[in-house]
Amino acid sequence: MATRPNGLDRFYSVIPAGGIGSRLWPLSRADAPKFLHDLTGSGKTLLRATWERLEPLTGPDRIMVVTGRAHRAAVEAQLPELTDRNVVLESEPKDSSAAIGLAAAILHHREPDVIIGSFAADHVIGDVRGFHRAVGEAVVAAEEGYIATIGITPTEPAIGFGYIHCNGNLGIAGAPGAVGADRFVEKPDLEVAKRYLADGNYLWNAGMFISRADRLLEQLGHSQPELLEGLTELAEAWDTDRRGAVVDRVWPRLAKIAIDYTVAEPAAAAGRLAVVPGSFDWDDIGDFAAIAKLHSGGRKSDLAILGEGARVLSDASSGVVISQSGRLISLIGVTDIVVVDTPDALLVTTSANAQRVKAVVDALKVSGRGDIL
Amino acid sequence: MATRPNGLDRFYSVIPAGGIGSRLWPLSRADAPKFLHDLTGSGKTLLRATWERLEPLTGPDRIMVVTGRAHRAAVEAQLPELTDRNVVLESEPKDSSAAIGLAAAILHHREPDVIIGSFAADHVIGDVRGFHRAVGEAVVAAEEGYIATIGITPTEPAIGFGYIHCNGNLGIAGAPGAVGADRFVEKPDLEVAKRYLADGNYLWNAGMFISRADRLLEQLGHSQPELLEGLTELAEAWDTDRRGAVVDRVWPRLAKIAIDYTVAEPAAAAGRLAVVPGSFDWDDIGDFAAIAKLHSGGRKSDLAILGEGARVLSDASSGVVISQSGRLISLIGVTDIVVVDTPDALLVTTSANAQRVKAVVDALKVSGRGDIL
Repeated sequence: MATRPNGLDRFYSVIPAGGIGSRLWPLSRADAPKFLHDLTGSGKTLLRATWERLEPLTGPDRIMVVTGRAHRAAVEAQLPELTDRNVVLESEPKDSSAAIGLAAAILHHREPDVIIGSFAADHVIGDVRGFHRAVGEAVVAAEEGYIATIGITPTEPAIGFGYIHCNGNLGIAGAPGAVGADRFVEKPDLEVAKRYLADGNYLWNAGMFISRADRLLEQLGHSQPELLEGLTELAEAWDTDRRGAVVDRVWPRLAKIAIDYTVAEPAAAAGRLAVVPGSFDWDDIGDFAAIAKLHSGGRKSDLAILGEGARVLSDASSGVVISQSGRLISLIGVTDIVVVDTPDALLVTTSANAQRVKAVVDALKVSGRGDIL
Repeated sequence: MATRPNGLDRFYSVIPAGGIGSRLWPLSRADAPKFLHDLTGSGKTLLRATWERLEPLTGPDRIMVVTGRAHRAAVEAQLPELTDRNVVLESEPKDSSAAIGLAAAILHHREPDVIIGSFAADHVIGDVRGFHRAVGEAVVAAEEGYIATIGITPTEPAIGFGYIHCNGNLGIAGAPGAVGADRFVEKPDLEVAKRYLADGNYLWNAGMFISRADRLLEQLGHSQPELLEGLTELAEAWDTDRRGAVVDRVWPRLAKIAIDYTVAEPAAAAGRLAVVPGSFDWDDIGDFAAIAKLHSGGRKSDLAILGEGARVLSDASSGVVISQSGRLISLIGVTDIVVVDTPDALLVTTSANAQRVKAVVDALKVSGRGDIL
C-alpha cells in the first residue's frame, strides 16, 4: 500500500489460536475450540476471519499462527495460505506469555528489527478499516519503543471485559491518538463499570499487543527471566534440526502465565505502554450472551439461530439457538433463552446466566466427565 | 375375591389404547404414543400399569385392548398375558365411540349380559384400592341399568380437565356413593374452575365408563344409529372367517366421534347416568406441566428427571427433563423449564406454556413436517 507507514514493512502478525472457550461449552470443545467456529453467521470461522482481517496489513507470508498440535490439521484447512515456516505448534498449552513470547523470539531471531502484533484468533471486529488505522498507529508507537495496545472505546458499562486506565496523549508523530496508560483493571462489577464509562479515561482491553519483538522480550525478561531464557533457547534451535529435541526438553518446563501479567501490566507501571484508542465494534464473544447480542443487534425480542441446516420452530421465544445436531428444535414461550444443541451434549440456559457456564464445565472436569469437554 | 359383588363376575375391562398425546410431543409420537411410555418413573409403561390395576378386578382373561394395527407388537410386548381373543385392532383411528362401542358389541355378542368398564391406557392412579372400590360401586350401578362413570373429587381448580355436575344420591344398594348427574362441562377457565371447586357438586371427568354392554349400545344407537348398525355387523362377523372382509368394508365408514357426546352426555341428560365419586389421586397426564407436578410433589423448586440413563447436570434450575437421547443435558438458571430431548427432536418450553405444545404439533403437520410427529 502506498500509504503504509514505514513500520508496517517490518510488521509481522501473530495469531495465538489456543484456548477452549469454556464459557461457550458445549459448542466450543477441546477438539473444536471457539476459533474453529463461525459465531457470526458470516460463513467463516473466527480464525479465517482473523486471517482475512490481518492479511491486508502484512500479506499472507507475514502471519504466524501459534496453536496446539491437535489443531494443526484444522488450522491448515482454514488457512491454506499458511506456510510451514509460519506455524508454531505447542506440545501442551502454556498460556499467552509462552505462546506469544515464542513467536516473538523466533521472529526476532530471524529478523532482529521485526515488529510483531498479536491478535487473538477468536475475536470479532466490525469496522476493519478502523482496525487497520489503529494498528497502523500502534506500529508507529512500537517503532518508538513502546509496548502498544489497542483499547476499545466503551459503548456500555460492560462487565465481561477488562479495562485500561489511560492518561495523557504521548505526542507521537504518526500516532496522534496514542495515549499513555498506568494500569489494567480486571472485569469490574456493574457499578464500577458505569463509573468507568462515565469517567471517559477507561478503555476496554482487547488483548492486542503490538511491539518490537526485542522490546517485548526484554519486558518479559524483567518479570520472567527463566521463561525468556527458555524461549531464546527454543528460538535459536527452531530453524535447525535440533528443534524437536529442544522443544521436548524446554517447553514442558516453561511458566504458564498470561502475557497481561508478564508484559502489559509491568510496561504500564513503567510508563512504557502506549494505548491507541479504537472506536470500532469489537467483541471477544466471551459467552453466549455475547453471541445473542451480536445477532440480535440489541433487540431483546429476537431469536438468533446459528448452525448449518438448523431446523428451529419458535413460538413467543427469544434468545439464541445454536444447532449442530440437525435435530428439529422447538421453543415455546421461552425468552432470552440459550439453547446449544450438539450431538453429545445439550445446554439450556439464559443470557443472564451465560457467565455461569464455565462453572458447569469445571464441575464436569471434577466429576470425571472430561470426555464431554 | 370373597367380597366381590356379583356384578364383577360379569365384568370385563376394556382398555382403549389409542391417541398420540399431541401435548406430549416430542416424547409421545405416532409410533410411540403416550401409553407406551413410563411417565411416572415406576419402571412400567402407563399401559402396563393400567393392566396391573385392572387385573385384580377381572383376572387376565377378561381384559380387552383396543389399539391401532401399528401398535400391536408393542402392546403385546407390554402385555404378554393378553390373548388374541382380547385384542381388537383398528385399521384406522375412529375415536372412542367406535373403539369402545366395538369392544362392547363383540363382548355383548359373546356374552349377552356382560358389564364392561372402559379405562384409558394412559392415566395415572395413586390409590389402587380406592379405584377398585369405586369400580365395584360403578358395576353395581351398571347392573341397575345405569351408564356409570367415576368422577374424581377435585383437589384444586384444575383447568385441564372436564367436569361433571352431580345431583342427588341415587340410593342404590351396594353403591352408596352413586349420585346422579345432569351435565358434563368442558375444561373451564380458572375463575369457573374455582367456582366449581367451591360449589362441591362438580367432579372431574376421568373418562371411565362402566355399563352393561347392551345398555351402552342402546344409548349409542339413540344418537348414532348408523354407527351402532356398523358395530353390530362387525361384532357378528368378528369371531368368524368373515372378520377381515367386514372390517375392510365397514370400519372406514364409521363415524369418528368421542363417546362423551354419543353416550355419556345423552345419558346424563336422560337421567340415566350414575356417578361414583372417587377421592383417589388421578391424572390423565395431559401435558408436561402434569408430568412436572407428578414428580415434584407440588414443590416448585424441584427438577424431575425422566428417562433411562438420563445424564443431567443442573444448576439453579427446576422443572422437568425427559431424556431419550443419552446425551448430557446441562441446565443453568432455568426455572419451571420443560426440556424433552429425543434423538430427532428437542422441545424447550415452560410448565406455564405446556398446553401450547399441541399448537406446535399442528404447525408441524401443516408445514409438511409430519415425519417428525
